[in-house]
Amino acid sequence: MGTADHKDPYAGHRVEIPPPQPFSESLKNTLKETFFPDDPLRQFKNQPPRRRLVLGLQYVFPIIGWGRHYTLEFFKADLIAGITIASLAIPQGISYAKLANLPPILGLYSSFVPPLIYAVMGSSRDLAVGTVAVASLLTASMLGDVVDAQRDPQLYVHLAFTTTFFAGLFETAMGIFRLGFIVDFLSHATIVGFMAGAATVVIMQQLKGVLGLEHFTHKTDVIDVLHSIFTQTHQWRWESALLGFVFLFYLLISRYFSKKRANLFWISAMAPLTSVILGSLLVYVTHAEKHGVQVIGHLKKGINPASFMDLNFDSRYLPIAIKTGIITGIISMAEGMAVGRSFAMFKNYHIDGNKEMIAFGMMNIVGSCTSCYLTTGPFSRSAVNFNAGCKTAVSNIVMATAVMATLLFLTPLFHYTPLVVLAAIIVAAMLGLIDYEAAMHLWHVDKFDFLVCMAAYAGVVFGSIQIGLVLAIGLSVLRVLLFVARPRTLILGKLPHSEVYRNVHHYQQAQTVPGILILEIDAPIYFANSNYLRERISRWIDEEEERIKSCGDIRLQHVVLDMSAVGNIDTSGISMMDEVKKIIDRRGLKLVLVNPVAEVMKKLNKSKILESLGMEWIFLTVEEAVGACSYMLHCKPQDSDKYTNIV
Amino acid sequence: MGTADHKDPYAGHRVEIPPPQPFSESLKNTLKETFFPDDPLRQFKNQPPRRRLVLGLQYVFPIIGWGRHYTLEFFKADLIAGITIASLAIPQGISYAKLANLPPILGLYSSFVPPLIYAVMGSSRDLAVGTVAVASLLTASMLGDVVDAQRDPQLYVHLAFTTTFFAGLFETAMGIFRLGFIVDFLSHATIVGFMAGAATVVIMQQLKGVLGLEHFTHKTDVIDVLHSIFTQTHQWRWESALLGFVFLFYLLISRYFSKKRANLFWISAMAPLTSVILGSLLVYVTHAEKHGVQVIGHLKKGINPASFMDLNFDSRYLPIAIKTGIITGIISMAEGMAVGRSFAMFKNYHIDGNKEMIAFGMMNIVGSCTSCYLTTGPFSRSAVNFNAGCKTAVSNIVMATAVMATLLFLTPLFHYTPLVVLAAIIVAAMLGLIDYEAAMHLWHVDKFDFLVCMAAYAGVVFGSIQIGLVLAIGLSVLRVLLFVARPRTLILGKLPHSEVYRNVHHYQQAQTVPGILILEIDAPIYFANSNYLRERISRWIDEEEERIKSCGDIRLQHVVLDMSAVGNIDTSGISMMDEVKKIIDRRGLKLVLVNPVAEVMKKLNKSKILESLGMEWIFLTVEEAVGACSYMLHCKPQDSDKYTNIV
Repeated sequence: MGTADHKDPYAGHRVEIPPPQPFSESLKNTLKETFFPDDPLRQFKNQPPRRRLVLGLQYVFPIIGWGRHYTLEFFKADLIAGITIASLAIPQGISYAKLANLPPILGLYSSFVPPLIYAVMGSSRDLAVGTVAVASLLTASMLGDVVDAQRDPQLYVHLAFTTTFFAGLFETAMGIFRLGFIVDFLSHATIVGFMAGAATVVIMQQLKGVLGLEHFTHKTDVIDVLHSIFTQTHQWRWESALLGFVFLFYLLISRYFSKKRANLFWISAMAPLTSVILGSLLVYVTHAEKHGVQVIGHLKKGINPASFMDLNFDSRYLPIAIKTGIITGIISMAEGMAVGRSFAMFKNYHIDGNKEMIAFGMMNIVGSCTSCYLTTGPFSRSAVNFNAGCKTAVSNIVMATAVMATLLFLTPLFHYTPLVVLAAIIVAAMLGLIDYEAAMHLWHVDKFDFLVCMAAYAGVVFGSIQIGLVLAIGLSVLRVLLFVARPRTLILGKLPHSEVYRNVHHYQQAQTVPGILILEIDAPIYFANSNYLRERISRWIDEEEERIKSCGDIRLQHVVLDMSAVGNIDTSGISMMDEVKKIIDRRGLKLVLVNPVAEVMKKLNKSKILESLGMEWIFLTVEEAVGACSYMLHCKPQDSDKYTNIV
Repeated sequence: MGTADHKDPYAGHRVEIPPPQPFSESLKNTLKETFFPDDPLRQFKNQPPRRRLVLGLQYVFPIIGWGRHYTLEFFKADLIAGITIASLAIPQGISYAKLANLPPILGLYSSFVPPLIYAVMGSSRDLAVGTVAVASLLTASMLGDVVDAQRDPQLYVHLAFTTTFFAGLFETAMGIFRLGFIVDFLSHATIVGFMAGAATVVIMQQLKGVLGLEHFTHKTDVIDVLHSIFTQTHQWRWESALLGFVFLFYLLISRYFSKKRANLFWISAMAPLTSVILGSLLVYVTHAEKHGVQVIGHLKKGINPASFMDLNFDSRYLPIAIKTGIITGIISMAEGMAVGRSFAMFKNYHIDGNKEMIAFGMMNIVGSCTSCYLTTGPFSRSAVNFNAGCKTAVSNIVMATAVMATLLFLTPLFHYTPLVVLAAIIVAAMLGLIDYEAAMHLWHVDKFDFLVCMAAYAGVVFGSIQIGLVLAIGLSVLRVLLFVARPRTLILGKLPHSEVYRNVHHYQQAQTVPGILILEIDAPIYFANSNYLRERISRWIDEEEERIKSCGDIRLQHVVLDMSAVGNIDTSGISMMDEVKKIIDRRGLKLVLVNPVAEVMKKLNKSKILESLGMEWIFLTVEEAVGACSYMLHCKPQDSDKYTNIV
């Protein structure tokens, strides 16, 4: 033990074995960091019971918190924002319900009850609640595999409610069991590719409405859809197509102006409603519904009927309802949470992800019992809400009230609304989801992320939405595994006139130390990489010895492993360290470790490898290790013999 | 840019943006490190064409290399070792073939051709080739689900050949496509648990032979097996059981003596053959075969018949043959490679994993065409080979020759060999696979590894071999993902009288710097952890500010992120950095980065985040960063205003 101590002039502090921690303690810490990284109970600490009750209620129903400070100023702003989003919600709701193969009225129902629930339970001030295109399409394609919406519409609608119920249940459970990190596995790249793919698919589906086709494929992949369109050229209706393209042009041009100047946002926000009004008037006046332009037809008056008894738990349909619920639930929740988080970031307030999940979940559970299908916080509607100057979730209450008024009094007005206008509204909304610039940014910054994005896109467009999702998540996970399986090992050199050692390939002026090979390992040492690391370290030594042989440098005598970046080690990794030690010993070299972190030090100690390595050959910094090695290199042969006998 | 430069007395070197590298170059490097970490073509560099040819041949057929230096001394050693392992191979071969529900003669065939192939192509000097218990059992249980070995023995045998063929094909392909890292995903903990579980299952299966039962369950889980045994108590044969326990006792006692003194290894090596001889004599003398002791019966004379035409590629059986081939191939190869590597480590020579896979693969492909089933390098046989002093793979040739002689002349001698002796041989071998001490070591060093091990064991024993394997690999992968999803963030403090900053929870004397929060991130920043890290960093800041408020310390002004251990970053991670910067800015604090590695620096630069961070706020060491921050803390308010205007 003492050998290196008195010889090494650099030795100040030594690497310590961390204080032992009982297993229960470390298990508790691990579980806490895994499931409660945000420490949600922190605010309850050291509070009297009454205060705790208030805080608890406020935790579940944030409206109790912000409602007390609500002012008339806020209400004015929320009123304007609420009316604006209602004018977007009504046509969008009807369109997306059509996309899900559901009766259009369900789209309006879904913009009434869920926003009220979210206003009470949600913590975002900017989110506007409603249905989304991707989840609608997914519902149609997954449920459509089992039940035909045309042939058995009642069963199909009931299954849609059941799916919504399971989505809500799953979202709530994820929130309660703190499983928010599952959503994290949908990376930014995955979402960009997936959304663009889904948008492409949705746009292709709209060709049915635009071309006025009666029959259409039930599949979503681009090849089937194109085949379906081009085998029916004789069925194309030019009246319908013309109307569609005119309205699409109007929607896009209004969006273009809104984008140019932020205070013109209302042009684009109102465009869908004006399209619906203009389209309906046009049909009413020209009787176009008799010339191939399909219209919505009769819509029932009155607010949401209860649908609790319609939930279908028949074992024949249960698996598909659960599966569809989980997939649509996760995807729509991921969108809602990302939207909520971005606006919170912008206005500088905090959103608790797990709490949001519970709010989304409750909103869908209640929704499924009141004739609503899956809702979340769609980006387009929330952005309009934000731009319209909303202050709190009261704008959602205003929107719900406006939708309720529509349901009670205005539904007959939609009788003549042409389907092709709804298709144009969907296409215009979807074009905004194809984010070409984001994909270019991925290509520019990180090629692998671009690959993931393209895999998601191609999977969705050429396969199905599920295939795209599985491909992208699989590739993302593979990347993480590959990072761990093939960690970088770097050669370190000394920066001149400093005590700092850095990667020689990164810092050109860094110089290696003669006779000492300094390696840094860049990842935790796990079973997945321990074989690789052993081989790679051997090869570094081979290469270094060859280099020395060819240029006649000082013979290699020490191998220094900088372990600073090795965050953890498992038992395979420990065997690897043992084998590396033996390999290095057998070559007549000396293994020196630098700065193992607490977790690694603990395991090296427990596994008795520390003894065979020798505590005196573990240093706190590379500089200290090199100092000790240089001392050994320059001491007389007798000394070196002595050292061999001691260690 | 210049602001910090002239103020900061510590600034020597700066963090550099690594030199740009064309995409093709970095792709090439990544692929090389992923698939060719051992750089197998290194030896061919700068060699004349003729020499390259020789090296190439030697690469595929290592025997050309070592054969030229083969001496008579070596041959004497190999002869003894070869005869020793043959005496073990014959009874083991017959036993394991019975375990696989295959005709016993196949076990002898499999010890003849494959060892010859391995001797020519393999690179281990100590590996003894043969069949293994676990793969035999897996073959029986997987193929048994599709074909009944009793009712349609010919189809069953043909499928076993086909399975062996696919296993060989898969092993060869893995070697050629450099996919050796797939084997790495079987961690040490997985293998310990899996092997113990498989051994338990195999021992339970032997109760059939020991108790002389005629009917037995086809399932392998412990509950079915115990049920099968205890519902047939009236069928138990005491003669058979007595014989079994006597021989088991003999085998175990001989192993005990061999373990005590290494030079007595031959007692244990010879014990199976002597058991077979004694058992056969006993039956022959007492006519026990007529009193419930089952015997092997007739064995065909002659060496392996060709079985190329027997390979069955019928589409009905193809999926199961391929699936069984892949699973048994991977598992048996993992055993063979681990065995080869350990002995290579011991004798200090190198084994090329990918080359070994090709050798195993070719051995099985040729084997499947010559009436052999799956072979690899079993531990028990190789250990005997090693202890018997083998020098090269010639011991395998000697063994093959001895087996050939047996096949040609001695098969009638096995007619009266009682099955119960074979069962005793298997049980004795399997008891060695239950490594209680290794499991205890796992518990002691790494609780999670112990959990993985127990999952594999319980999965195999209570479910099936496949369930155990999937459970264990799933848990291992989950661990890697959790490590990345929940990286540690550590608070750093300065060690007194040094310039070194370390984790304050590891080094008790490390002291935090007032007004500066220094955090270290311990893993790559990926989509899977970017949300977590953002939340966690916010929480560290909250906690630090609360602490300061309660103890009246200097107000927090800087947050230093030590990025040394962040090996990589993806686009989600970059967005996270951007968000963290905004959060910190909005709290009126300053974000400072320390030592981003080349890969991270490159991406920060490409994504233009470097500009918003400011190159002058990125330092090479924590000490430099703290120096610059302290300077800012102590400078006058005007100065601080000026700085706010500049940055």
